[in-house]
Order: sequence, then structure tokens, then C-alpha cells
Amino acid sequence: MQIEAKIKEAFEILEKRVPLVHHITNYVTVNDCANVVLAIGASPIMADEESEMEEMVSLADALVLNIGTANERTIASMLKAGSVANAKNIPVVLDPVGVGATTFRRESTQKLLDAIAFSVIRGNRAEMKTLAGREAKSSGVDSRDEGDDGINITQDLAQKLGCVIAMTGKEDIVCHAKECYTLHNGDKALQNVTGTGCMSSALIGGFVGATHDPLLSAILGISTMAIAGEIADKSKGISSFKMALIDTIGVMNGSLMLEKIEIKQIF
Amino acid sequence: MQIEAKIKEAFEILEKRVPLVHHITNYVTVNDCANVVLAIGASPIMADEESEMEEMVSLADALVLNIGTANERTIASMLKAGSVANAKNIPVVLDPVGVGATTFRRESTQKLLDAIAFSVIRGNRAEMKTLAGREAKSSGVDSRDEGDDGINITQDLAQKLGCVIAMTGKEDIVCHAKECYTLHNGDKALQNVTGTGCMSSALIGGFVGATHDPLLSAILGISTMAIAGEIADKSKGISSFKMALIDTIGVMNGSLMLEKIEIKQIF
Amino acid sequence: MQIEAKIKEAFEILEKRVPLVHHITNYVTVNDCANVVLAIGASPIMADEESEMEEMVSLADALVLNIGTANERTIASMLKAGSVANAKNIPVVLDPVGVGATTFRRESTQKLLDAIAFSVIRGNRAEMKTLAGREAKSSGVDSRDEGDDGINITQDLAQKLGCVIAMTGKEDIVCHAKECYTLHNGDKALQNVTGTGCMSSALIGGFVGATHDPLLSAILGISTMAIAGEIADKSKGISSFKMALIDTIGVMNGSLMLEKIEIKQIF
Repeated sequence: MQIEAKIKEAFEILEKRVPLVHHITNYVTVNDCANVVLAIGASPIMADEESEMEEMVSLADALVLNIGTANERTIASMLKAGSVANAKNIPVVLDPVGVGATTFRRESTQKLLDAIAFSVIRGNRAEMKTLAGREAKSSGVDSRDEGDDGINITQDLAQKLGCVIAMTGKEDIVCHAKECYTLHNGDKALQNVTGTGCMSSALIGGFVGATHDPLLSAILGISTMAIAGEIADKSKGISSFKMALIDTIGVMNGSLMLEKIEIKQIF
Repeated sequence: MQIEAKIKEAFEILEKRVPLVHHITNYVTVNDCANVVLAIGASPIMADEESEMEEMVSLADALVLNIGTANERTIASMLKAGSVANAKNIPVVLDPVGVGATTFRRESTQKLLDAIAFSVIRGNRAEMKTLAGREAKSSGVDSRDEGDDGINITQDLAQKLGCVIAMTGKEDIVCHAKECYTLHNGDKALQNVTGTGCMSSALIGGFVGATHDPLLSAILGISTMAIAGEIADKSKGISSFKMALIDTIGVMNGSLMLEKIEIKQIF
Repeated sequence: MQIEAKIKEAFEILEKRVPLVHHITNYVTVNDCANVVLAIGASPIMADEESEMEEMVSLADALVLNIGTANERTIASMLKAGSVANAKNIPVVLDPVGVGATTFRRESTQKLLDAIAFSVIRGNRAEMKTLAGREAKSSGVDSRDEGDDGINITQDLAQKLGCVIAMTGKEDIVCHAKECYTLHNGDKALQNVTGTGCMSSALIGGFVGATHDPLLSAILGISTMAIAGEIADKSKGISSFKMALIDTIGVMNGSLMLEKIEIKQIF
């Protein structure tokens, strides 16, 4: 099937299924994540008590793990949630926020990678370089490290970890071992709003909960945020822009996506 | 006193007392809850460290417990806070978010119900059915389960638990053992914003902290959100709608409430 | 150097350095704090797992500690983070939210004061009176306690604690032991939005991470919020006002600050 037909179908399935997306995520951007999941037509739930993970994950269509403000307790809940999701064939998305910043984040992420089969891992260049074992120039949770070897890193990591890798930055790269795309939407104003990365990962959760197609979902989640960033009014300031972003995600559909998406297949 | 006179008086007391509403609530919608409590003219405080519950609750005029992202630690804090509130005759509101979803939520809620005398319990149909011991069709924290036995469930639960039960849905039902109302305001767009239920519970906390009248407070808290949902501009998208909701709550008063409220006494 | 020249320079340094501001803060206002730090041109990070504090703080240019929803676990993380910051000469800002409300808050704040050398402590009048050991009329986290001895309290506290004290209220007072200013910007509408105090402290973190000048940073952080409160549109309601506040902070710069700031040197 052509990518165009698959995109159109993905939005149809999303509308029909209204997937429940369970998040164990950070408390900084959690409200925006819940609202973008609603905006795209999915249903969010946030819960992190380990003793309820088995039942809660079982109700969900997708699981999103985000280590932005993780602690020992919530990492344990993530490990439990991920193993339940794997056992029940529920797709799992990882957002390894700031993984290069501390030993705790590196080791926690390694535990997650060892224990859980992820469908999609989305992060910025520095985070992906850390996962790939390459030296990253990290400045906390943000990354301005750019270069021309992004496709190699993404492809290597996809092969090594056996899942879809989505590296967001000036250009976005989405690969699995045998297929790779670059995405060319977006606006630099997105850097001025906290949580656009977290929200992209949440959107991927919505799409993959509907379609069970990790590659397509990574493309659509990232492109939804990027295209909203192009369309949303930036003239009134950064908080108005954030509101306009979520408003715009609320009107995203297959036709608008097909009209706007700029995607190039690398292999 | 007629309901009209009581509504007018409630807003006057609220304006005069500026009640302090203590919340132990979820981290998804907490900022919106704080802002609607301010918008209605009350004063919010959020705190969940068990060792400060005795003093913090003692300062408050109402306590709102919301289990949306509860964990073992915060449930312990809720139990402590509730018992202090009861001892000091401070009204307590419960929002049993997603109670049917997991054993942890059911058992934690049962512990809260066993230990604390609540003034108002507000939830959606599925949550109320779970509390009533009936089988609920739950999909995480949201509920689209509708039917025509809502009044029976609400009334039974009010009798069983000895407090005001507020079941929100297509029509809202507010009952205590001897009195029951249906409320007919609202807009389906409210489903597209995360936290409108949590915010309604927070608003009930504001009203009951001022009036100490649980039935009236449940009616006013729910109607404030529902009427704001009718008035607030929906044309710009869901995030703009959320902002307009809180803006509208900020101008709610007795006259506007009396002009807009659609309430029917069942018994 | 004159204050005018210092203000202009501060914004230039901020723009050049883009300081990373690490927060251990409350979950009520955390998203707004992250967005104002971005709006002013700094970079926010929020993390509270004790075992990553040493590395995370080491990456930061400033640390902001806010006890709004602190618990035993996060106070331990604050103690660790503060001691690392002190060892590395990274400035630390304290926001002792509601310190007078409970023994837990008083004792936790005392532990922080005993262990950490702060650059700036910002709070409302009741919080500062509590720190000064004077009786405060506290109503939870908000304070409407006004009087004419604010300068004395602020100056005494600055001498006692050996750091810059910023007491916000109807007039804002910023002192260290040998220098004291009153600030006369602001709008009473700021009281209607949750988190304007927290956001001011976060902004101070941004400025002090850039300039390492605590007195100037306290003046600029507070004045940024106060001037935004004057400029931002209040006609549409309190949620729109909050959005406009952050939009306005996003266009704050040295020229606008110098045009608007109303500052008076007391000694």
C-alpha cells in the first residue's frame, strides 16, 4: 500500500477505535500530553502506581513511557507496565528525556531497554546519540547538537534495538531496520514551547494504539506536531502559540496531513 | 428557602468568605483545578505530605480528594487528611477517578469510604456504578456508558453512603437520601478537554467550603462548569475552549447562574 | 555601574548564555514555570530524583527550590541539590511556599537554610515574616497580610540569612544587607492567577543563572512578572490573562524593562 493510502486509513482507524493511551510521564507537560491525545481523537489515561499497572495497562491500547521527571518509584512502575504491555501485545513508546544527562537516566533507560520490547523510541539528537553509545553534546533535556550523520545513527539504533527510532530535530528522521524516512515539516518556534517533544511521543502513542503500525505512527505523530507548528499562529506570543498548536491538532485529519506532509524515503 | 434564594446567597457567602480549598489531587489537571478555584472566588492549596496533613487541613474550609494519579503514599495522606477534616467538621469532596479500572483504585476508594464521612462524591456514570457495586462498562477514566437508571443508582448510593452523590454525564444527577435533582446544562465539547470532571469537583469544594451545604454545592459546582461549557467560545479549538471555560468561570455569579441553570427536582 | 546599564547588560548576558535552570518545584505550576523560563530566553529542566541530583545540578547554571508541594522525598533531593550547587558555585533560589502553614514546611525550610547558602529567597509577606520569626497571618499559600514594616523585615532577614531577600506584595521589596530597593510595578489581577509567585522565582533563576548577580536578578525576575501583569490584556478573563502574561514575558527585553520599571533605592 502506498504511504498516502496508509495515512488516510490510519486516521480512519483512529477515529473508529478511539484508542486508550496509558502514560507514565513527567509532571511538567502531562496536561498538554493529555490534551493533545484528546485533540487527535484518542483517550488519555495517566497512572503510575505500580500495584495497578497490570490492570491499567491491560485496559489500554498503547503505553507511553517518558522519563522526564522519573524517580526510582516510577521507573519500577514503568518496568512493570512495559512487561505487561509486551505480554498482551500492546505497543509501547519510549521518550528517553535527557537520557544523557545523568547516570540515573542512562541506567534506568538501559533497564527499560533490557526488559521491554518497544515499538517506537522518540527523542532528540543528543538522546539518540546517547542510546547509540556515541558521545552527545547534551544541555539538560534540550538538544541543539546538529550534524549530518543523523540517518546513520537512527538506522544503526533501529537495527540494534529492533524497533522504530524517531529522531526529531531540524529534520526529523524515522527508521526501522529496513526502511527510513526524513520528515521536513516544522517550525523553529516549536523550540520555544516546553513539551513539544513529549506531546509528539504522546501523539505517536495515539496513532500506534489505533494502527499497530509503529513506523507509520511515528511518522504521523511527529508530522502532526510539526504541521501544527507550521499552521498555528505565532504572532501573539509563545503561550498563545502553544494554545494554537493544540487547537490545530484538534482539526488534524487525513486530508490535511496528506496536503501538508513533506516526507522523503531514504531507503 | 427556595432554590433561587439559596443560589443567590451561596455566591454572596462565597464572595465574603473566600474559602481555602485544600486538594490532594492528580498531577494531570491540578493547575486547571487551582485556577478554577481562584476563578470562582475561592483560594486553592495543594499539598500531599502526610506529616503536614493535620495542620494543613485545619487551615482549610474544604478538602477535595481526587484519586486520578493516586499512589500508596498519597492514599495514606488522603486517609489522614480526611480524618482530620471529619474531626474538625470541614466538608470533604471525593472524586473517585477511574475507580472501576483497577483493584488498587477500588480498594483505595473503599478505604477512603470506610474511614471518612464525605459531604459530596462526584463522578461519572461508570465510577458511580462501581461504587454502587453494579457492573460498569469502564474505559479507563472516561465513561460513555449511558442508560436510564441513573437516578436509581444515584439515589441508592446516596442512601448507602449517607452523603450527596453527583453523577455527571449527558444529564447530571445530584441526590441525597431525601432530595434529588437533575441538571440539564452542558455541552458535549466539555468531553474534549481533559479535567472538566476534576475541575467540577474542585468547584464543589469551593462552594461547600463557603456554604457547608453539600447538596447546593454539588448543584452549583457542576452547573458552573456546565454553563461555562455552554457559553465559552468553541469556534477556535479545544485549547482555546479550555481557556474560555476558565475565563467564563471567572465571571460566574448568582445572577448568571440563576439566568442559565436548568434544574428539575425529581423528589 | 548605574542600575540602567546593569539591566541592559543583564538581558544581553541572558541572551548570550541561555542559562540552564534546574527546578525542584511543585506540580501545580511547573508547566508555567518551564514556559516562563523559556519565554525569558533561558532553558528549564525539572528533575527531583535524589540519585541524579549531583550530575543534574552540575549541568545547570542556576537551581530553583520551591516547596509548594514538597514531601519528605523531594526535600531530601533539594538538600542534595543545594549542597552540590553550593560546592560548584551555582546560585540557588528558594521559594518557601506557605512556609508558615505547617511544622513540616517550617522544619524543612529550616533544614534547607541550615544546609544551603542561598543567593535569593523570594516569598510573600507572610512567608518572609515566618522566616524572620515574626508572627504571620497566613492563609495557606496566599497572603494578604499587609503593613508598613516590610522594609525592616526584609532588611533584617537579609542580614540574618546573608542573602538577597525579595518580598513580593502590594509593593515589592528587594534587599541585601547593604542595599535595598522597592519596586512599584504590578497589577492586582496577578493575584487571580495561580503561580505568579512561583513563576517570579523561576524568572529570578533565569537571570541569576546568567548574571550571577542575585540582587539585580531578584529585581529583574520580579519586575518582569510585574510589568507583564501591567501590559497583558485583562479584558478577556483570568485564563486569557495568564496566557497573555507568558506571551508578554516572551517579548521582555532590556529596553522594555528600562522603559517600564519603577524602582526606588531605599538605602
